[in-house]
Amino acid sequence: MAGEERKLAHGAERIDFQTEPARYRHWKLGVDGGEVATLTMDVDENGGLYEGYQLKLNSYDLSVDIELADAVQRLRFEHPQVKVVLLRSGKDRVFCAGANIRMLAGSTHAHKVNFCKFTNETRNGIEDSSQNSGQRFICVVNGTAAGGGYELALAADHIILVDDGSAAVALPELPLLAVLPGTGGLTRVTDKRLVRRDHADVFCTTEEGVKGKRAVEWRLVDEVVPNSRLETAVAARAQELAAKSHRPLGEAGIALTPLERRITPDSRDYKYLSVAFGRGERLATLTLRGPDAPPPASIAEMAAQGAAFWPLALARELDDAILDIRLNEVDLAALVFKLVGDGEAVLAYDRFLDLNRDHWLAREIRLKWKRVLSRIDLTSRTLVALVEPGSCFAGTLAELVLAADRAYMLVGQRDGDNRPPATLALAEPNFDAYPMANGITRLTSRFLGREAPLDQAYAAIGRPLDAEEAESLGLVTFALDDIDWEDEIRIFLEERASFSADALTGMEANLRFGGPETMESKIFARLTAWQNWIFQRPNAVGQEGALRRYGTGQKPVFDTKRV
Amino acid sequence: MAGEERKLAHGAERIDFQTEPARYRHWKLGVDGGEVATLTMDVDENGGLYEGYQLKLNSYDLSVDIELADAVQRLRFEHPQVKVVLLRSGKDRVFCAGANIRMLAGSTHAHKVNFCKFTNETRNGIEDSSQNSGQRFICVVNGTAAGGGYELALAADHIILVDDGSAAVALPELPLLAVLPGTGGLTRVTDKRLVRRDHADVFCTTEEGVKGKRAVEWRLVDEVVPNSRLETAVAARAQELAAKSHRPLGEAGIALTPLERRITPDSRDYKYLSVAFGRGERLATLTLRGPDAPPPASIAEMAAQGAAFWPLALARELDDAILDIRLNEVDLAALVFKLVGDGEAVLAYDRFLDLNRDHWLAREIRLKWKRVLSRIDLTSRTLVALVEPGSCFAGTLAELVLAADRAYMLVGQRDGDNRPPATLALAEPNFDAYPMANGITRLTSRFLGREAPLDQAYAAIGRPLDAEEAESLGLVTFALDDIDWEDEIRIFLEERASFSADALTGMEANLRFGGPETMESKIFARLTAWQNWIFQRPNAVGQEGALRRYGTGQKPVFDTKRV
Repeated sequence: MAGEERKLAHGAERIDFQTEPARYRHWKLGVDGGEVATLTMDVDENGGLYEGYQLKLNSYDLSVDIELADAVQRLRFEHPQVKVVLLRSGKDRVFCAGANIRMLAGSTHAHKVNFCKFTNETRNGIEDSSQNSGQRFICVVNGTAAGGGYELALAADHIILVDDGSAAVALPELPLLAVLPGTGGLTRVTDKRLVRRDHADVFCTTEEGVKGKRAVEWRLVDEVVPNSRLETAVAARAQELAAKSHRPLGEAGIALTPLERRITPDSRDYKYLSVAFGRGERLATLTLRGPDAPPPASIAEMAAQGAAFWPLALARELDDAILDIRLNEVDLAALVFKLVGDGEAVLAYDRFLDLNRDHWLAREIRLKWKRVLSRIDLTSRTLVALVEPGSCFAGTLAELVLAADRAYMLVGQRDGDNRPPATLALAEPNFDAYPMANGITRLTSRFLGREAPLDQAYAAIGRPLDAEEAESLGLVTFALDDIDWEDEIRIFLEERASFSADALTGMEANLRFGGPETMESKIFARLTAWQNWIFQRPNAVGQEGALRRYGTGQKPVFDTKRV
Repeated sequence: MAGEERKLAHGAERIDFQTEPARYRHWKLGVDGGEVATLTMDVDENGGLYEGYQLKLNSYDLSVDIELADAVQRLRFEHPQVKVVLLRSGKDRVFCAGANIRMLAGSTHAHKVNFCKFTNETRNGIEDSSQNSGQRFICVVNGTAAGGGYELALAADHIILVDDGSAAVALPELPLLAVLPGTGGLTRVTDKRLVRRDHADVFCTTEEGVKGKRAVEWRLVDEVVPNSRLETAVAARAQELAAKSHRPLGEAGIALTPLERRITPDSRDYKYLSVAFGRGERLATLTLRGPDAPPPASIAEMAAQGAAFWPLALARELDDAILDIRLNEVDLAALVFKLVGDGEAVLAYDRFLDLNRDHWLAREIRLKWKRVLSRIDLTSRTLVALVEPGSCFAGTLAELVLAADRAYMLVGQRDGDNRPPATLALAEPNFDAYPMANGITRLTSRFLGREAPLDQAYAAIGRPLDAEEAESLGLVTFALDDIDWEDEIRIFLEERASFSADALTGMEANLRFGGPETMESKIFARLTAWQNWIFQRPNAVGQEGALRRYGTGQKPVFDTKRV
């Protein structure tokens, strides 16, 4: 398979998702205290993640998107005054050439798939910010936006294309590379931009893309503007969108300080999270810790805690750990979630956030949890929750039980362990705060199309449920006593590790998302699954395929069978 | 790739989708004139489609499903009195072992994918019959129903499992073969049966399946019944479901007589349809002919015409041609639809069917068109409609324009051709009769989320639209005059044939289905796309993969990377 040998640049041993504006190589985050921020893409050709390619023409790899994701987070938490973000290019007459083709051609299948997944999540994050946090995005396309470049524009609320006779938007993946636009392009063109499907067909098979008036008529962009009027138009649109924003006035942001992490070859230790890799069993055990203090007395106190505020700190740590495992630990088959702490203390934080749900920062923290949990749903590893004495699966943290492919709960106590039996507790946010990518909560998904069990679960809010009750309410898969616990779970995890990794990915991607679909879930299912298929097909990735042949002067050789 | 060399059995040169009960080798259709029919699966081990495997334990290949699809059609048209269909096994203590593993292991990727697509369509047809034609299905599982066997049961309205200590339902594909249940199983388990997702996880990873009480508790079956009470229970359920059916009383069915076909290596000629293969250009031109007489004066006259009634005859011919191309002509890249006839005559038939829309036979014919058009949407070839002078793209037949990835319409007349310019006309059925797999009409899909163009199209009902007007209403992609026509279309088709077949399949599967999803569309998108991916992965189909190693005594060797 292509790219197995590729080395991370600068001798790095793992991909790190933590960064900050001072370290950006590819983006500039311009925030001057006003309502409008500018996020400028100016990719450093030599700043790629791996050795062996240059990021010309604002093309990108994962390292570029890691910075973008970071900037979008910081805009939400650190800059509450920002109502509009301009996405711009720092290159003259070039917006963005999309994902770097050499990078793609030389990447492993696993890297390609996980790269696309992360870039999709980043763009969904932009839309989430617009929809739920009132930070609207305007994309200023000053030159050609091709492939992932146009897909970045598609994530914005408003696309302005320069009308200079050459600037165009394009999705040239199919004619050029024999793959699909991999970052939501096909779905957003039809479902968000509402481009007519036959126009979309023409657009997606036209290498040079569409420019000028036709780009507007076909709804591919919102307006085309000559260079001479560009800045006036951008300012006008920014003002219009800012006027509609519900961002708070006069609030100070909180700094997303660097995560404290201790990294060893077989573990990661954060403040509220420890990750241990069991390489023999091919699993990662994630132990999350509950709060070490009661919730703050006021919003002001929460703001003063900033990034140290327990729910925010844990969410950021968990997000980092999941991404780390996805990209750096592809051989692990299962993620086992364990919790340590006091369920009542967790519920107290949930009540605090509920009480202050209209405050911008409390809302941001909930939205952050929504995205982290969604990232977990979309992680192609078996998800297991073990509910044991001393754990705190309550409220927000009970979502981990509901996200799991299977949850096991210990009945009663363990021999030689005097802690009280494990309990599990639901809270209001389990019923509304954390919709999955398909738009429904994990509880609604669990009891799809059935009201009675959902009503029963709602009636149980706040009550610590023992294993039998949790099982009878349908909240855990199996309640086991101490005699069976060890063997049952060992056998399950061994069995899981013995199954085909691909088949598990496909099965879990289906069973986790029963019921409705949204644009977001369609991007991860319909579109991504087809792309994954194509990423396996010789027409794209074979020795004579288009990705390999690109730029060699040789035409690709295709198997012509339509399957 | 596996199976390229496999030969069709009995020296057949192509797969034929036409059959009739007298020729069935695998099913018995028992209709005694009463309300309850029995469809008995009793697979002839030696009746497989290809050489090289035996269909043991009621396992099946495409030949078995072709008969099932035929029987389901005949029940609808030939047996209006039937209100309930019992799906039963003719084997002792075995219901159905699912798709034959040797067949799968030795099949080409293209055959596997198209086999799954057809079996899915057959099961959707069963559900369509239940939902829209009042023929309800009861599946009597007298022994183990595994894999595709259980997926057949899942298509029924009611599943009765024998409680004999060994009969079980199972989806053993993942643990046994490293593939997914490929005929809608994962989606139907969560979305139709409403099985809890963690129970579904356990079920789909348990090779031996689930039996007895747990099968009911987990909603996998509707009831378990000991053998001694089986026939009583079946009769009771049949009576209950029959009582709720709206099937007509005292109506005579019409015989689905054999299609008249003339088959040559490069063409198919039916009464109202000619198919010409342009192998050099890798396209099939399908020329459909309008009616050769006005619609009948009455329902009785329509019934007397039976299968010769133009809309029904054409639908059956078109269905046969599409299936023929899908399975036998995998190298063709595009289907070009042309029509010959009088648009007003087509509209007259539409009005006749509208007027009689509550009559069972008129409804069946509309539903047949719905399924044929849906089959076209799901065909992985580029769909092109050419609207030229002398054509009759009107009403039902205008759906071919709306189904096309692109539609071209000629402006004005051709040099030396005195026929009037082409027109296109919409009718009521374009707005309600033919929902796609995703539950919305092709027009709604075309104008997704936009009411104005849909309203404008509605206002144009019945009016012959010339090319400019059709283009301005957004009904065709391009209106071209005679000067550009030839070159534009030639270049488009050449270009299309030059693109990667796989990438086109993925792109079209996305662009054709903007907007909402249904269980049916999820089966074809989310589930099938993942399955196609897995069907490419070495863990399943490699030399050491599970499909190849099955039954050899050797364990498969898996790449453990989770992607």
